[in-house]
Amino acid sequence: MTGAEIIERCQVLAGMSETPGAITRTYLCPAMHDVHRTLRAWMEEAGMDVSIDAAGNLRGVYGQGAPRLLIGSHVDTVPDAGAYDGVLGVVLGIALVSALGRRRLKFAIEVVAFSEEEGVRFGVPFIGSRALVGRLDDELLGRRDARGVTVAQAIRDFGVDAVPTGQEACPTVGYLEFHIEQGPVLDSLGLPLGVVTAIVGQSRFDVTFRGEANHAGTTPMHLRRDALAAAARWTSFVERTARATPGVVATVGALHIHPGATNVVPGEARASLDVRHADDAVRQAVTTRLRCAAEKIGGRRNVAVEWRQQLDQPAVACDAGLTAMLARAVQTHAPVQRMTSGAGHDAMIVAAIAPVAMLFLRSPGGISHHPAESVYAADVDAALAAGMAFLEELERSHV
Amino acid sequence: MTGAEIIERCQVLAGMSETPGAITRTYLCPAMHDVHRTLRAWMEEAGMDVSIDAAGNLRGVYGQGAPRLLIGSHVDTVPDAGAYDGVLGVVLGIALVSALGRRRLKFAIEVVAFSEEEGVRFGVPFIGSRALVGRLDDELLGRRDARGVTVAQAIRDFGVDAVPTGQEACPTVGYLEFHIEQGPVLDSLGLPLGVVTAIVGQSRFDVTFRGEANHAGTTPMHLRRDALAAAARWTSFVERTARATPGVVATVGALHIHPGATNVVPGEARASLDVRHADDAVRQAVTTRLRCAAEKIGGRRNVAVEWRQQLDQPAVACDAGLTAMLARAVQTHAPVQRMTSGAGHDAMIVAAIAPVAMLFLRSPGGISHHPAESVYAADVDAALAAGMAFLEELERSHV
Repeated sequence: MTGAEIIERCQVLAGMSETPGAITRTYLCPAMHDVHRTLRAWMEEAGMDVSIDAAGNLRGVYGQGAPRLLIGSHVDTVPDAGAYDGVLGVVLGIALVSALGRRRLKFAIEVVAFSEEEGVRFGVPFIGSRALVGRLDDELLGRRDARGVTVAQAIRDFGVDAVPTGQEACPTVGYLEFHIEQGPVLDSLGLPLGVVTAIVGQSRFDVTFRGEANHAGTTPMHLRRDALAAAARWTSFVERTARATPGVVATVGALHIHPGATNVVPGEARASLDVRHADDAVRQAVTTRLRCAAEKIGGRRNVAVEWRQQLDQPAVACDAGLTAMLARAVQTHAPVQRMTSGAGHDAMIVAAIAPVAMLFLRSPGGISHHPAESVYAADVDAALAAGMAFLEELERSHV
Repeated sequence: MTGAEIIERCQVLAGMSETPGAITRTYLCPAMHDVHRTLRAWMEEAGMDVSIDAAGNLRGVYGQGAPRLLIGSHVDTVPDAGAYDGVLGVVLGIALVSALGRRRLKFAIEVVAFSEEEGVRFGVPFIGSRALVGRLDDELLGRRDARGVTVAQAIRDFGVDAVPTGQEACPTVGYLEFHIEQGPVLDSLGLPLGVVTAIVGQSRFDVTFRGEANHAGTTPMHLRRDALAAAARWTSFVERTARATPGVVATVGALHIHPGATNVVPGEARASLDVRHADDAVRQAVTTRLRCAAEKIGGRRNVAVEWRQQLDQPAVACDAGLTAMLARAVQTHAPVQRMTSGAGHDAMIVAAIAPVAMLFLRSPGGISHHPAESVYAADVDAALAAGMAFLEELERSHV
């Protein structure tokens, strides 16, 4: 298959949506039946045995026995999404198996279309891959969507083949995921592909600055306890620190001011903070610096700072061996750009049970989670070629 | 009368409210009839002829003919107000006339209880004093409150004596206003009284920073167009500039972030800016610096800046002669603290037709527009004594 044909298949799947005129496909929505039917046909055409596991993941197995190479990504979407986030990785996996032309390798290949990754319907992401690694626990099964339907009920309503979800019992060679970058790095460098070395760890905090609301006309500057002035100074410090620390991204994405009137000195400012880095020690060091700075900046203005952690998710390293193999596979078709993934992906979850490797495809304009999301056909060609070279080296290395 | 008795009278008026358990008295609300009845009794007891003009201002004249010294402040309040903002100035004016013990001066005294200053009911302030200076025009009379009632209809519904509002025809010696400071300056200095030299001019702006919303994980720092990072840096510049420029207050009181999610780089930040200074040239120079800084800071981040002026209100100087006289009057009872008023007052409007002087009384804790607003009885004693000394010097100076 060509890159153009793979893109066409993504477009076919994009027509299957909860909402007419837009691409929206949340976990186990009715449109997912159409997606499964279509993917099943493509998988079977490529010589795979297909089933739907108890978490709604569509799984196509090519070849028999163990060990297996897993190739996967997700087929759910955010609301009003683009056509490639997740889906492209699944269609590319099927295309790779097709390209083998029924030739058997020393290992089996299982292409997994994860049923859920975006966290839209139940407020938690990675339901599909969590099920694969044996983490579909009662707490998760009991979670309810906006209409009060539990995950367990949603699975019953959808109807599945009830094959076990767990992959723990089956030895795996590894897990390979193709995914659009969803960021501007490759596009800004003019490169088609990126070899992912790690998925960054992430810290999230709520940071509240508490000063005193006062009349903006009658309170001289030196008698103010301006919560926003403190939050603003700290926000600048966050930006400066992140810029000065290679690989770090740090974001103040939300900032709420109280009372928030033109003529009132702000008494309270609540900021969000999101810090990511591939090295957990660097991330912890940066967040510690940011916390100290908040307290120092607040202290100078007699503004109290309340610091609450919301998330502390460790970084996940891709497997060094598989990643080196993937880099060699890319090298014959394109320059090798090693990079970290700033967003979470299924590979991060699967890493608990298998060595993982991940290949990014350039996102033109860095645009994702938007109908304008796109990929270049030539980049998909390059990804497919790299994937084939990867399979060939894996075959050679299996004696 | 003593300061304690004057405070007691303010407390009596505080019981007259639109809302039980709180002090709320908007323009021409029913409770204003009680206030007028009470003030009228106190004015008549002090020897004044009382009427309600066509804008609902209660006016008590002591002595006959011209010229007149006007003494006034307002009797409306913000919602859930304190007992002294405005009211204290009116009650002090009546107490001054009382203190004359029916002795006539070479000039008449008119105590004015302005019906509206806070701008709560019709969204525009100074209705009472604007009427006094002949600016109660059709535009103002046609404005509607939240229930669709016009100013003109509110006046008809309330019922007034229909004496002319204008003061232009009557020669005035000047206008004197007593008012609580509504700020922390006198309290922080441990002083009871402040002689106001000017009411600051005020600029208000909406400042919008437009960058680009992006994924907080996948967008490296150097490829961001973070609108909040620009707004934060500029907010710090505003604070620093105001601190470095004597007499300036500058406030970013409101800041709205879009989309405002923890994991999204802010695409837009809308800030308010309020700048005040007693010298219009200084205020203009500061706002020009702040605007240039916004553009420079935005430019460095490829963030566009939209700058829209909402208000440009010139400063109003108090009359040099009357203010010097007031300072001499204060000097015999307390240290003289000259200061500007950071908030607007009726004196600012009346200045269009008369030389004005204004005396601030310390606001303990700087608290105002709040039920905890207070004054010290000893400070009121000092204000009354200063007022008497002011009347005596004015009398001596009238040959």
